[in-house]
Amino acid sequence: MTTKNNNVFSITPIGGLGQIGSNMTLVSGQEESVIIDCGILFPNEDSFGVNYIIPSLEILKEHEPKHLIITHGHEDHIGAVSHILSEFPSIKVWSSPFSSELIKRKLSRDKLNKKIEIFKEKENIEFSEFSVTPIHTNHSIPETHGLLFKFKSKKVCFLLISDFKFDNQTPYEPPMDLEFIKKEVEPFEKRLLLVDSTNIKSRNTKTFSEADIIPTVESIIKNNKKRIFFTLFPSNIFRQKTILNASKKFKRNVIPYGKSVENYLQTAIDTKLIEESTSHIKSAKSIDCDSDKNIIIISGCQGDFKGALRRVAVGEDAYFKIKKDDLFIFSSSPIPGNEKKVSQIINKIYEAGGEVITNSDLLIHSSGHAGKEDLKIIYEAFSPTDIIPIHGESYLLNHHKKFIEEAYPKAKSHLMYNFDNLVIKNNLEVKVYKNDPIENIFIHGKGIPLDKDAFRQRRKIASMGVVFISLKIDTLNRKKITQKIDFLGVPQIIDQYKEKLENLVNNHFNKNKIRSFEKTEENLKIEVRKMCNQFLGYKPQVLIHFI
Amino acid sequence: MTTKNNNVFSITPIGGLGQIGSNMTLVSGQEESVIIDCGILFPNEDSFGVNYIIPSLEILKEHEPKHLIITHGHEDHIGAVSHILSEFPSIKVWSSPFSSELIKRKLSRDKLNKKIEIFKEKENIEFSEFSVTPIHTNHSIPETHGLLFKFKSKKVCFLLISDFKFDNQTPYEPPMDLEFIKKEVEPFEKRLLLVDSTNIKSRNTKTFSEADIIPTVESIIKNNKKRIFFTLFPSNIFRQKTILNASKKFKRNVIPYGKSVENYLQTAIDTKLIEESTSHIKSAKSIDCDSDKNIIIISGCQGDFKGALRRVAVGEDAYFKIKKDDLFIFSSSPIPGNEKKVSQIINKIYEAGGEVITNSDLLIHSSGHAGKEDLKIIYEAFSPTDIIPIHGESYLLNHHKKFIEEAYPKAKSHLMYNFDNLVIKNNLEVKVYKNDPIENIFIHGKGIPLDKDAFRQRRKIASMGVVFISLKIDTLNRKKITQKIDFLGVPQIIDQYKEKLENLVNNHFNKNKIRSFEKTEENLKIEVRKMCNQFLGYKPQVLIHFI
Repeated sequence: MTTKNNNVFSITPIGGLGQIGSNMTLVSGQEESVIIDCGILFPNEDSFGVNYIIPSLEILKEHEPKHLIITHGHEDHIGAVSHILSEFPSIKVWSSPFSSELIKRKLSRDKLNKKIEIFKEKENIEFSEFSVTPIHTNHSIPETHGLLFKFKSKKVCFLLISDFKFDNQTPYEPPMDLEFIKKEVEPFEKRLLLVDSTNIKSRNTKTFSEADIIPTVESIIKNNKKRIFFTLFPSNIFRQKTILNASKKFKRNVIPYGKSVENYLQTAIDTKLIEESTSHIKSAKSIDCDSDKNIIIISGCQGDFKGALRRVAVGEDAYFKIKKDDLFIFSSSPIPGNEKKVSQIINKIYEAGGEVITNSDLLIHSSGHAGKEDLKIIYEAFSPTDIIPIHGESYLLNHHKKFIEEAYPKAKSHLMYNFDNLVIKNNLEVKVYKNDPIENIFIHGKGIPLDKDAFRQRRKIASMGVVFISLKIDTLNRKKITQKIDFLGVPQIIDQYKEKLENLVNNHFNKNKIRSFEKTEENLKIEVRKMCNQFLGYKPQVLIHFI
Repeated sequence: MTTKNNNVFSITPIGGLGQIGSNMTLVSGQEESVIIDCGILFPNEDSFGVNYIIPSLEILKEHEPKHLIITHGHEDHIGAVSHILSEFPSIKVWSSPFSSELIKRKLSRDKLNKKIEIFKEKENIEFSEFSVTPIHTNHSIPETHGLLFKFKSKKVCFLLISDFKFDNQTPYEPPMDLEFIKKEVEPFEKRLLLVDSTNIKSRNTKTFSEADIIPTVESIIKNNKKRIFFTLFPSNIFRQKTILNASKKFKRNVIPYGKSVENYLQTAIDTKLIEESTSHIKSAKSIDCDSDKNIIIISGCQGDFKGALRRVAVGEDAYFKIKKDDLFIFSSSPIPGNEKKVSQIINKIYEAGGEVITNSDLLIHSSGHAGKEDLKIIYEAFSPTDIIPIHGESYLLNHHKKFIEEAYPKAKSHLMYNFDNLVIKNNLEVKVYKNDPIENIFIHGKGIPLDKDAFRQRRKIASMGVVFISLKIDTLNRKKITQKIDFLGVPQIIDQYKEKLENLVNNHFNKNKIRSFEKTEENLKIEVRKMCNQFLGYKPQVLIHFI
């Protein structure tokens, strides 16, 4: 199914609107459909084993998308690629070289293989009704692109820039080519802009340049003749470069430490994003880890439970033990929801005798997302007739819409959430149709969905424990012979009451003949839970086996 | 046990240092010991049923404390009073009238009764070796006190001000009496100050006055002829007063809504902290809840799962349904760790058509804790010889210590964590002895500790589910007759593999005779977990009953 006849095309966000993560957008023309990005969302709670969350892909099936175009290599844009491939094995995947390498490594971990089409910046990818022009933009990972969709038969184009900032200071890459955008969009009567809302509430109206971080890193390394740990978003290759360069300048060794930091750095070296000499890069295995000459680039800036930084902070790491005067630089900021995990790590570092410098002490991190001034630059260059805030929680989308109304009233702004449907009609009218959201899918283990029932059960047993009762039944006479009661996740104090529970079960079978096992099970469950409630003040789950 | 002979006294923080919450301090003289405050800590994770956390009270037992003095009525200072009373039933509890009323209501919910001694500001409470003078200070709850301990035989005193700010603008209460403090401490040679570290990293070096909030509240109510929900820390009676007064001024009805808001307000009225006419206060039951004349003061500013605000935000409340243009004012800030919960509520409000104003939009909240300038005011008034940062996570204590070194180098600063021991010797030397921390106690249900094993089990079953296998045994021949397998918290997909699991169990008993039930159980467990891992990619817990 593609878009109905009196429409040019429709845009349906599948993820990323009303949430931070799982970015995915369906663009549906008359003849073909493409997907932009396919990201994952990280769960709010660590407790239920959920590895990541993806949007429901049901809606895509109706549209038979033939192409998947990747804007950049962050997990919230490529993380669900295996799921897309298992649903649409013949889909063509388009990306830049670095992103393609990240995708390939991800797929190979899932034992999958897929040819990826490499696009070049400013070179059109041609489809039947439209062409797509990837336009380089700045962000916190190399090779990030806005995608310009130009419709052939109609005077309409749209530019989707999910994650971006405007950075004309960074030495690592050029800024977005605004003149190119201006020229490209000139012929189009209707110009839709879908653009990043992440930092709309940021106090910094102009996002700092990656260049602003360089002097801080250099002065930290120059002025501290001690061991320094830098933690950062591992995919921020430019930040890694800044630390590598400054370390070389001041003759310090660098140890990339932690899976994620090591992987991204290696991928960057393999794809020639880092071409400088790497002779000062050492492995923890090959060097005196205690030396004050060491600069360590370490994974785990979000306080991740399995991250190298946490391991070091709590004293469980094999190579690095915190010693007095160790310096830890958080060249990052906590992703909303991770504040507590991060501050717990910081506490542990202090308790072990280290010192910590964060973003709130020094200009040691610049965001990858557009502040209000960055947004204005894009509004002016693209001169949109319509703007749709994307990439952000609901309150951010709303604030972005309000900002557009003030800062760029020429454009019409449209509020959309996931699964809503933006339609461009033949008369170039833009309309948003509201749709009910479809529930996300929780993935645990080998890519397996954790269904709602299982999730609900986990919640219950997690918060109240579970009582197992097995009852040996004389099946001929329908009498209970013997019983066994066990607990999981119930406080030990319950042992004091075990006899009472045994008596309860006995009394139940003395009084009541087993006419219906179902009925008996139901009644016994109620009684056991009631008695537990008397002892504990809450009712554990109860599972009963007649056998 | 009290302090050893060559010491004047010792101070042992039991909670509140290196964490936010469960404030409790033991002061031990030669002859007697007193406890200051007895608070609870809220758990980081909501998932395991834990209601609250208290420090281990073991160490108190050695000291037989005879008195408990309460600085103010916040939960992190009074929440564990039932636990203290069940350990030390004859302990004398001292507090101000409002705090005492809060404690009584709390005890009555726990079916306990206890006479509480009421102290008066600036009036000494006399003990054998020392006297304690409660000195009023500003904070975010009425009747907050610093406690000045003056030792009779020795030239030493200390002032503990756990939570405070210095507010000489608020119309609701006087500022801390600095002249009184100056006069009181003059005779003492050694002056120790234990003081609040919560806001040491705050961007506001001088904490805003409660008075600063009044014009914002008035202008919001004056300029918005629509329904307005104010959410706040319910114990902030002054903030409630500000809203009540402004509502009266602009002829609006006020509906206190949610248990916590209603309880605190009622307690404030009962204890005459609110004496103004309350005729414009209405109950949700008695009024047209939809009216745009309503101002609602609503519980749940931290995004609490059971809070009234969340219920309204997600559309589950019986009285209030969000309608377009409803205005929600967060006259609060998220407690570290609650950021995500709060932003989820804000998202829900926007999705339902409401609008939200927070602290980051307008000056609509002032903290109850001292900024750096407030701290300096206290340093100057008390002129301490020694300062000990208290009330804060480890990184805050460390930053506070650094600040003291810069801002008040005259005093010696001491870094302490929970269970460390600060000793004043007879020669007035101050020494801090490090001690290992003692693990906290997790409380669930009827005040019952959730032991570590139960907690660990909950974690495991929460993240991987559980397989329950019961095996009917022919006990004479030690043969398995039949079996039953069930799952909790395991995805439904496992049903596809149930036959394979059944076969696995059958094969196990075909091949192996039951020599030892223990050994069989252990081996079978391993095999079942291994097979589940093949299907799911993780190993659920397995519980086996031979019966």
